[in-house]
Amino acid sequence: MTDTELHLEAMPLRSIDDVWFQYNEALSQIEGEIKKGLDSAVPLINEVAQYALVGGGKRIRPLLLIISANLGQTIDERHLVLGGVVEFIHTATLLHDDVLDDAKTRRGKPSARNRYGNHASILVGDFLYTRAVCRVVNMENSEMNYLLSTTCSKMTEGETWQLAHTSDFNLSEEQYLKIIAYKTASLISTCCQLGGIMAGVSSEEKDALSSFGHNLGIAFQVADDTLDYVADQNLLGKALGQDIKEGKMTLPLIHLLAHCQTTEKEMLIELIKNGKPQKDLSSILRLMEQYGSIVYAQEKAAIFVEQAKEKLNLFLPSKHKDALCTVADYVISRGY
Amino acid sequence: MTDTELHLEAMPLRSIDDVWFQYNEALSQIEGEIKKGLDSAVPLINEVAQYALVGGGKRIRPLLLIISANLGQTIDERHLVLGGVVEFIHTATLLHDDVLDDAKTRRGKPSARNRYGNHASILVGDFLYTRAVCRVVNMENSEMNYLLSTTCSKMTEGETWQLAHTSDFNLSEEQYLKIIAYKTASLISTCCQLGGIMAGVSSEEKDALSSFGHNLGIAFQVADDTLDYVADQNLLGKALGQDIKEGKMTLPLIHLLAHCQTTEKEMLIELIKNGKPQKDLSSILRLMEQYGSIVYAQEKAAIFVEQAKEKLNLFLPSKHKDALCTVADYVISRGY
Repeated sequence: MTDTELHLEAMPLRSIDDVWFQYNEALSQIEGEIKKGLDSAVPLINEVAQYALVGGGKRIRPLLLIISANLGQTIDERHLVLGGVVEFIHTATLLHDDVLDDAKTRRGKPSARNRYGNHASILVGDFLYTRAVCRVVNMENSEMNYLLSTTCSKMTEGETWQLAHTSDFNLSEEQYLKIIAYKTASLISTCCQLGGIMAGVSSEEKDALSSFGHNLGIAFQVADDTLDYVADQNLLGKALGQDIKEGKMTLPLIHLLAHCQTTEKEMLIELIKNGKPQKDLSSILRLMEQYGSIVYAQEKAAIFVEQAKEKLNLFLPSKHKDALCTVADYVISRGY
Repeated sequence: MTDTELHLEAMPLRSIDDVWFQYNEALSQIEGEIKKGLDSAVPLINEVAQYALVGGGKRIRPLLLIISANLGQTIDERHLVLGGVVEFIHTATLLHDDVLDDAKTRRGKPSARNRYGNHASILVGDFLYTRAVCRVVNMENSEMNYLLSTTCSKMTEGETWQLAHTSDFNLSEEQYLKIIAYKTASLISTCCQLGGIMAGVSSEEKDALSSFGHNLGIAFQVADDTLDYVADQNLLGKALGQDIKEGKMTLPLIHLLAHCQTTEKEMLIELIKNGKPQKDLSSILRLMEQYGSIVYAQEKAAIFVEQAKEKLNLFLPSKHKDALCTVADYVISRGY
């Protein structure tokens, strides 16, 4: 053990950088797993998948899986395979999302659909998902299999639900929260649960990890949706205001529509219907500031993070528990 | 048993209508299973899935699964669930295919993407696939699980492989046959195998069913690709010449390019590159007639059907074996 490692062993994992450092070895091994999985007989698949998968992703989902697994009694090599699996599934959804959103950039570089076309993005998304299923099936653990398959189904339901409410100016906060629970929180919750299942935690601990991930996932998406209005555009790697341009109803806009005056609401609806809200983004942001919509969404995300952390109360203090809390704080503090 | 049933019991199943009639009850139950599966909490999913799934499909895959299951010793309710599963997977690929091909019609009515948009088609395709996986996982049979997951992965590889060879005027017949083995024959082969696995056939019989389905699947796709040039357009339910318009290299065109004169080849390449080959479809068809390209593809499909039927030699004569042979003959004799 090096001096730095000894030092880290003793100190709580208070910053996200400490956390990345602590689990760096496992994350590196997962990178290896991900690359190993890009072994299709079809070169185009490997090329597009590599482009979408390698470089740029924060690997939050594999990280949560690894840390959760460390909370249990035993840990084995399966968390490496599972880490790759959840990143494959996540990337499959990104490839399809980019097609759905006509996204030009992702993580500061041209999106895969921009570089390889919509066709390749759709098909390689399909491939990554099917390959993820193959890997889980090979593990012959029916609990994991069942959990991951129902999660993927929920994710597609969440995405379609969101689509069905495009430009629905009456979408309530409650409905919005249900949609993001399906489309985003379900996979994050499953990552935490999978780590727990693999490490043989008790049924109560599994539920706690699931609830932690559920609340964290909601906070993550609320923060993400808020950043679409207020992030540092250079760090975000894409233009602001994408969601409102597509008529995607997210928390800052839902709050604003529910609190602004009738004439302002009519003006906002007109802007969105005309498909040019990005041109007037600064005036929309001024309204959001006036009615506290951005602060409201940020506070909502913070409440979900607190709820997430509370769910971990049944675990004894440990650096791994600290690490989960640090990741939770990170998802709402990031500026992009 | 009614008189008609008694009559059918005794006579060989020589026509496809006899076959549909014989397995009508099981097919109807599978229709029920399919409808039961459209129980998402998201109404748009049920609507789009119902539109894509119900009415119009020939249900060849569930039919092959049922007949194959009847070749074994035992048969149980699982073939109904599995019949629904393979039709869900098949429909998922159709929903994505229609987006990839910008298809306006499917089975004589507006395609789902035409009616509900590309977004809904992509997401409901994803949903159907994830829901199919859930159903198989619930059966807790690792052999079936493994077979279906690797098959789905192969199918996406086949589709991407085909995409990578769009307008590849040097694509060989051998490469074409490999592509269609992946994208089409793999699922048809798996349907036959699944029936066998469920019914507890021997390992040799399983292999025979798999090979039967593999050869039949290739014949099916070659016939389909040939019909894209020569079908009765009204019965086909879509315009002829879609494949050449998209630069999709299929057997009649591959044969023609390999046998026509250099000047004719250059003219064909020019037409395809300009994206307007449908305008000159009649002159392309004349060339195909001159060089025997349509007949060649039809004979090729017939050879694969004969190979398929030979694979069934190890089964004793029975009406179910007859039925498989009748389905095999049908896939190359249909006019649309």
